[in-house]
Amino acid sequence: MNNIKRAVVLLSGGLDSATVLAIAKSQGYECFTMSFDYGQRHRAELDAASSLSHAMGAELHKLVTINLADFGGSALTDERIDVPVLPAEGIPVTYVPARNTVFLSLALAWSEVLSVSDIFIGVNAVDYSGYPDCRPDYIAAFEVMANLATRQCDEGGQLKIRAPLINMSKAEIITKGSELGVDYSKTVSCYQADQQGRACGVCDSCRLRRDGFVAAGVTDSTKYQT
Amino acid sequence: MNNIKRAVVLLSGGLDSATVLAIAKSQGYECFTMSFDYGQRHRAELDAASSLSHAMGAELHKLVTINLADFGGSALTDERIDVPVLPAEGIPVTYVPARNTVFLSLALAWSEVLSVSDIFIGVNAVDYSGYPDCRPDYIAAFEVMANLATRQCDEGGQLKIRAPLINMSKAEIITKGSELGVDYSKTVSCYQADQQGRACGVCDSCRLRRDGFVAAGVTDSTKYQT
Repeated sequence: MNNIKRAVVLLSGGLDSATVLAIAKSQGYECFTMSFDYGQRHRAELDAASSLSHAMGAELHKLVTINLADFGGSALTDERIDVPVLPAEGIPVTYVPARNTVFLSLALAWSEVLSVSDIFIGVNAVDYSGYPDCRPDYIAAFEVMANLATRQCDEGGQLKIRAPLINMSKAEIITKGSELGVDYSKTVSCYQADQQGRACGVCDSCRLRRDGFVAAGVTDSTKYQT
Repeated sequence: MNNIKRAVVLLSGGLDSATVLAIAKSQGYECFTMSFDYGQRHRAELDAASSLSHAMGAELHKLVTINLADFGGSALTDERIDVPVLPAEGIPVTYVPARNTVFLSLALAWSEVLSVSDIFIGVNAVDYSGYPDCRPDYIAAFEVMANLATRQCDEGGQLKIRAPLINMSKAEIITKGSELGVDYSKTVSCYQADQQGRACGVCDSCRLRRDGFVAAGVTDSTKYQT
């Protein structure tokens, strides 16, 4: 029983987090997946996350509702701010204030109840949108904080925040996921996917994803709206 | 306009956070108060928080719903676990996994949208229940992480986590709050207060509060159930 490693895996339903789930499974973890209904406009990713979790053999999938749209401040949660079609200077308007901190905190709460030692997150600091909460020093600082925050750690447990994609290019991520058998047609990356999960093809996230498939030499199975 | 200091103040509706709000106000901050409906059994504190925020002149009060009861693991969110009447060895069952981390993360999200530079929290490491997320090294680590997490900080802003009560005894807190005019009869500290906000008088939180009033030599205006 003690040899079983358990992990909470943050699963958005996108390409990156699906690859992370495959990596965690390949490393022998029992995986508990967690998604967030945070008021995002691209809600098709939530259906994708649930399907992926089941298809990829996770133990349990938890959908947590936390209305970050109530705070505003992001194109992803505020219909009045358009999702841009061109790469931005600096941090783009699709940045959601403190999103990864909120998600990791809730993963920390669940991980303590489950006696989990590892939290996996699909952040990436190479082919990404410049969000501050995707960088290695941020992840390292969260881990330090988390190891002071909980009863589990107070009693000698060590919590690891695993970000296996953090230094990989999008092409490397796709190559790795393909080797592990990830079905990318089931993933939704687009910031404004329609209800069927079809991608717009023009947002930052679509652009990074499409370029990644080309660079990896892998057929792009993404469903586009047009 | 630039001289106005803004703060998010975590306001549970209890004695400590009401004192923190008074301290922040006395230091000249415009205060934005934040409470959490997290599935706690002592929901009377939410009404108290809303009343206190209004009575004490906060700019805005935000109630955020996040169902930590869904994770379980605490007497405060799970009706099947009794609130103990005797002080515990170690961390008691009233500990809620990662609660302060979740609360501070959501305060961080709101603070970024509001362009707030300070988050106030009423944690205390003297007369407290031994929760790990009430200690100075935890608060310091959260601040380090927060300053790597957001666009606001990326653009040169510095965020401070203020915990003005952290080294004060309960009696010192009550003395300070009384000097600042806090009406403690409006606060609810009890872990199992009834719907009218009347305290049980026997839980850990009631015990610490009652002892504090005695030690401070301040009349205890708490409403008890019996």
